[in-house]
Amino acid sequence: MILGLLKEQGEEQRVALLPEIVSKLVQAKVEVYVEKDAGASAFQTNEAYENVGASILDRTELLKKAEVFVQIGEPSLELIRQLNDKQVWISQYNPLWNTDLVKAFLANGVTSFSMDSIPRTTRAQSMDVLSSMATVAGYKAVLEAANELPNFFPMFMTAAGTIRPATVLILGAGVAGLQAIAIARKLGAQVEAFDVRAAVKEEVNSLGARFVEVEGAIDDSAAGGYAVEQTDEFKKKQQEAINDHAAKADVVICTAQIPGRKAPLLIPTEAVERMRPGAVIIDLAASTGGNCELTRNNETLIHNEVKIIGQSGYPSLMPIDASKMFGKNVFNFLQLLISEEGDLNLNFEDDIVKGTCITHQSEILNERVKSVVES
Amino acid sequence: MILGLLKEQGEEQRVALLPEIVSKLVQAKVEVYVEKDAGASAFQTNEAYENVGASILDRTELLKKAEVFVQIGEPSLELIRQLNDKQVWISQYNPLWNTDLVKAFLANGVTSFSMDSIPRTTRAQSMDVLSSMATVAGYKAVLEAANELPNFFPMFMTAAGTIRPATVLILGAGVAGLQAIAIARKLGAQVEAFDVRAAVKEEVNSLGARFVEVEGAIDDSAAGGYAVEQTDEFKKKQQEAINDHAAKADVVICTAQIPGRKAPLLIPTEAVERMRPGAVIIDLAASTGGNCELTRNNETLIHNEVKIIGQSGYPSLMPIDASKMFGKNVFNFLQLLISEEGDLNLNFEDDIVKGTCITHQSEILNERVKSVVES
Repeated sequence: MILGLLKEQGEEQRVALLPEIVSKLVQAKVEVYVEKDAGASAFQTNEAYENVGASILDRTELLKKAEVFVQIGEPSLELIRQLNDKQVWISQYNPLWNTDLVKAFLANGVTSFSMDSIPRTTRAQSMDVLSSMATVAGYKAVLEAANELPNFFPMFMTAAGTIRPATVLILGAGVAGLQAIAIARKLGAQVEAFDVRAAVKEEVNSLGARFVEVEGAIDDSAAGGYAVEQTDEFKKKQQEAINDHAAKADVVICTAQIPGRKAPLLIPTEAVERMRPGAVIIDLAASTGGNCELTRNNETLIHNEVKIIGQSGYPSLMPIDASKMFGKNVFNFLQLLISEEGDLNLNFEDDIVKGTCITHQSEILNERVKSVVES
Repeated sequence: MILGLLKEQGEEQRVALLPEIVSKLVQAKVEVYVEKDAGASAFQTNEAYENVGASILDRTELLKKAEVFVQIGEPSLELIRQLNDKQVWISQYNPLWNTDLVKAFLANGVTSFSMDSIPRTTRAQSMDVLSSMATVAGYKAVLEAANELPNFFPMFMTAAGTIRPATVLILGAGVAGLQAIAIARKLGAQVEAFDVRAAVKEEVNSLGARFVEVEGAIDDSAAGGYAVEQTDEFKKKQQEAINDHAAKADVVICTAQIPGRKAPLLIPTEAVERMRPGAVIIDLAASTGGNCELTRNNETLIHNEVKIIGQSGYPSLMPIDASKMFGKNVFNFLQLLISEEGDLNLNFEDDIVKGTCITHQSEILNERVKSVVES
């Protein structure tokens, strides 16, 4: 296999593979080419890649040379047009949302894998970039909230009196939400968590947070760990509960997302207007519309003295460890595609390979993506 | 007593007294006037002050009306020139450093107190703004470092492998340093601390940090909790130890300060150049020159891929709780100046009143300030 590691575009600071992972690929007989300065924003030099056996190329050469391309972010349409049906693309390109990219891959017959479509099975856990990046996002969201809040997170009892602990409300108790609970608790905040999936209550409690309960939810135990859409009546009760808890919170961290759909609206403008001056909302669902009505993706704004941070790119802001985790996930996945001789081996009998493959020889293999693109 | 609460100047976001403290002063029969929008940056409205019995005035009226002025930051020379010998000034104006302000107060015969000169006695602990603001600074320094670092602070053991914990080196184990140790430990970092005062070792260890020992220090147990200057030989050994530990650290937090003097240089340029790319230095001593040779006050710069943050204004960045603590300290101090009838009562028999008073009737009362100004 001839693997090409691409430099990310735009503001992205991560790199899909750190030199330590490239070293393992070289040992597995993969020929690795790295785009010049691919690791620079993640503090990895070209020399570090060369030292583990990779060669540095510029972009044009790399696109001609490699058969398997790895990057983190979405490719541009222009980039996809330069690929052909002998080449394989691997990145996290959100095909349920970016159907134009799916169509571009189809048009050129490119075999494309999207790391966000890794099946949520036990065997695939070590490849689950959504989980590992959500861990980073949950951690960073709490740090940013604590850094922005005009108050302490922990309680302080000092000679000059007592400072009360901050109250943090976390919406959505998936991987990011649970990580956020854990870190906010470590920093001494009082934490409340809300999730439409009643099944997560125990996990929330075990992390030291209080679970905000709203009765009447649709059972979701068969949804593979994702949230499902709820009834209107339930949503209304849910909304009132969230508004009441948000009004008392110092920080709200929004993490609720539904794959391939707009994020659920959980904090309407009137809820923001009931919050106290100086409060902070971090909206991790910003890229799919946000859980807060006022959120704008990758912008920070202030409404009624409440700061609303629409940050969907936290992993990019912690580039070394986020790259390390992403790369480890990709490496574990790549092992399914590399033969003992180091050659490319597309085995669609493997449920992980099949589930992660979006396009192959001008067909859409992934059923969910297929139904979205064809509808 | 007619008390005037001034609006801070420049970037300062705190306010010396929150409405909850003004309420207590009003109950103690003090007449309180608040400069318009004094609390705005700390999320306190004019109405909130009026609701507890204060009146809002503009600056010109306030300067004429009040006999005791309270603010946090240093006054401008222009402001001091508008005061007279019937008026009392209370703020944290660092007279050991700002001798021009001392001279201006003397010239107009103003009675001035500087809250950073509160004696470090048990009775005065509840008035110690240096300690309470150092608590804020130590806390914020760790949050900012964690937020800037391209790595996690905590260790993670995930399906995709293990992330090692960050190593944080804290220079100076005073109030800020100890607070920084506590928060960095809570966030799961491995923490090392260095202080020339061997006496703090036990406290450092009890917080879960490793004490970096250098032998041959001058005994400082009689220095009232401050560090003393050390010999050249000791400084050289100390320097080597710090350089070695900094080279392995992900984060260095500098907190070493000597009152009225330039901060000790602990991280020379060559130590920065041995640090790893992506490492972060937070220098809390920035306003007095910094512990790091490259620090610039209130600037962030990058040298050899190491980020150096010269932030001496962290309390201003957490304005509600920092104002709450500062105000509680000032309130406890003011109680020594208010008679039962609510009148101003300057009792220089009280060691705290005497020790905190810098100028009175064109004389310098504070001995340390006197020796600095007259030398």
